[in-house]
Amino acid sequence: MSITAPRGWRAAGVRAGTKPSGERDLALVVSEHPATVAGAFTTSKVPSAHVQLCKPRVATGRARGFCVTAGNANAFTGQAGVRDAEVMAAAAARAVGIDPEQMLVAATGTIGHRLPMDVVLAGIEAAARALSRDGAEDAAKAICTTDAYTKTAVRSFEIDGVTVTVGGMAKGAGMIAPRMAPQATLLVFLTTDASASSDVLRDAIDRALPTSFNAITVDGCMSTSDTVLLFANGAAGVEAKGSEHFAQVVGEVMSELAYAVVADGEGASRVIRIRLSGAASEEDAYAAAKEVATSVLVRAAIYGGDPNYGRVVQALGQAGARIDTERLRVSMAGVELTIGGEDTGRVDEAAKALAEGGDAVIAIDLGLGSSSFEYLTCDLTPDYVRFNAEYTT
Amino acid sequence: MSITAPRGWRAAGVRAGTKPSGERDLALVVSEHPATVAGAFTTSKVPSAHVQLCKPRVATGRARGFCVTAGNANAFTGQAGVRDAEVMAAAAARAVGIDPEQMLVAATGTIGHRLPMDVVLAGIEAAARALSRDGAEDAAKAICTTDAYTKTAVRSFEIDGVTVTVGGMAKGAGMIAPRMAPQATLLVFLTTDASASSDVLRDAIDRALPTSFNAITVDGCMSTSDTVLLFANGAAGVEAKGSEHFAQVVGEVMSELAYAVVADGEGASRVIRIRLSGAASEEDAYAAAKEVATSVLVRAAIYGGDPNYGRVVQALGQAGARIDTERLRVSMAGVELTIGGEDTGRVDEAAKALAEGGDAVIAIDLGLGSSSFEYLTCDLTPDYVRFNAEYTT
Repeated sequence: MSITAPRGWRAAGVRAGTKPSGERDLALVVSEHPATVAGAFTTSKVPSAHVQLCKPRVATGRARGFCVTAGNANAFTGQAGVRDAEVMAAAAARAVGIDPEQMLVAATGTIGHRLPMDVVLAGIEAAARALSRDGAEDAAKAICTTDAYTKTAVRSFEIDGVTVTVGGMAKGAGMIAPRMAPQATLLVFLTTDASASSDVLRDAIDRALPTSFNAITVDGCMSTSDTVLLFANGAAGVEAKGSEHFAQVVGEVMSELAYAVVADGEGASRVIRIRLSGAASEEDAYAAAKEVATSVLVRAAIYGGDPNYGRVVQALGQAGARIDTERLRVSMAGVELTIGGEDTGRVDEAAKALAEGGDAVIAIDLGLGSSSFEYLTCDLTPDYVRFNAEYTT
Repeated sequence: MSITAPRGWRAAGVRAGTKPSGERDLALVVSEHPATVAGAFTTSKVPSAHVQLCKPRVATGRARGFCVTAGNANAFTGQAGVRDAEVMAAAAARAVGIDPEQMLVAATGTIGHRLPMDVVLAGIEAAARALSRDGAEDAAKAICTTDAYTKTAVRSFEIDGVTVTVGGMAKGAGMIAPRMAPQATLLVFLTTDASASSDVLRDAIDRALPTSFNAITVDGCMSTSDTVLLFANGAAGVEAKGSEHFAQVVGEVMSELAYAVVADGEGASRVIRIRLSGAASEEDAYAAAKEVATSVLVRAAIYGGDPNYGRVVQALGQAGARIDTERLRVSMAGVELTIGGEDTGRVDEAAKALAEGGDAVIAIDLGLGSSSFEYLTCDLTPDYVRFNAEYTT
């Protein structure tokens, strides 16, 4: 049930007609009760029309539903695109009987084309009629574009003896390099039935983002449309504020969804975990882990099953972080490959360990301090290139 | 003749045994006369042993020869690697009868492995015996690794009625993102028979670098070993100082070689020129052009013949440069695709124009100012990934 697992949430995913494939492409999710919201958006200098519309609405801290189109991102569509987003939100709000200002919108797909509004508006009417507690999987399908599968997560825990649930769904497989990734944007929606002020929601997102969605990359390309929204409708009748677990559970749901995005990275055959430790500062740990995760050479080597630590060292050299080659240790799949510039002669052993499959772990110890960071990416495969050469505007 | 086209230069390229393929892998180039030198090196925080040795030597402004091994980069090899580089330079200097401090060394290949010194030293002896004015093409072959072909350029011009020549050779096809790229490093060597102080040489490199080697990328990966060296031996009997043409000709030779590196980018089928204009500042022009050139999504789209300007807009949004979407214009292969967020409806025309082949030109006008920059890259192909997955340490 994911997004509708918390009490008081209904969802639908229908075929409107914005995806040429004819698959479900319009999602609508609404709370039966007034709700609070917090969010995070792309830092692109060319934010999509939907992002432009939603930022001020989320800033009010109050919203109780959202509507998503897939196939067309409504990005780089000027003021006309912002008006389209506004009309879409108003139509969705009217169809479910809530205040227009409390309906949020998101979109993902090709950039630079106006939304086919007739198709979208008809889709909204159909989605409103289809809303139900059983609609979460249809909604999760409807927001996908280049995704191979839907990404959902649910966690329940107790506050003062009352069971509270956090549900989430995400989409994204390409253009993934969120600094809170275009065409295959990252969209993440979370719901809970706890009662929470937008400040509490904001705090939970702020705590979880750096180590979840802002710690993954598929292709190094940040989207114009990245959006994370967390809604709370209080239907469980208990306050999140003061609960030690709320932010932690939100973080767990976000991390599970972030992992799923990388695992479904366009063309990917496996997840790569860059575990960086021993950095002189937090900034160095992040910069070094990110540079290794973003390296097409490292990602291609892992696809090839090659424990090529030279490419890891190259990426570290480019990161700008403080490095002392005599203290640097690199291991892959649990096999130490180099200790301070001395090759351990265990490349064949590492290749065998890598070939066993599962997540490929590259562990790097800079040996300089106590800061660490884990960044997730996926291997780079010929399928990635073929896919992105053939997927047209 | 390239590197030996200027008077007083001799070159050789021999099989030493550092390339598993058994191809030529050791180059030696020497001036018959004392010579001056200036250079530029990688800004990697993990510079190769050869870079560490050469930087202070180049700073003296005097050197008259260089020796290059290919197949092993002598990078991430610690202090032992620096000592190997020193021994290599000393042996090469002795073999040709010059001061050891005036012999420079460079290397390209896998990272993290000590040089097989017995093989290198025997190769140096063989190269010294083979030195000749006709050895330039052998030398150009010997410095290649993943390169499909050699890269050379020659220009002659007159100073005070005397013909002066600048010759150059370069290698590099992968790990190309010089700021001043491991395994497939960029190495550039230039010779001239003009007489020039190291300051004049330095100035010529400084002027040419920003728009030649620092304006290209293949894979966004900066090498630990990037090196540009420009030598002048004065054999033409005329001073470069005061010549308007000298720096310009050095720039032309460097640009021709930089283009050749991109054209030979690993797996590449064509060159992509990102022509950015109308930026609010020089910094914005550079940052925006570089971000588009580095985008794997843009590069894959061009491989697919798809004039996907949405991916260009995505990359621009990530660059951090000032953008006003209502002023932004993007064209491909001479066909305007969007004017300020308005799609021109000419995508099919642009696709046809792109299919005609040749360099793919993406012209972007930010419409905000008068700063411009051209950045070169190549398309991203399935062959790039296959190659880098199979090319092992």
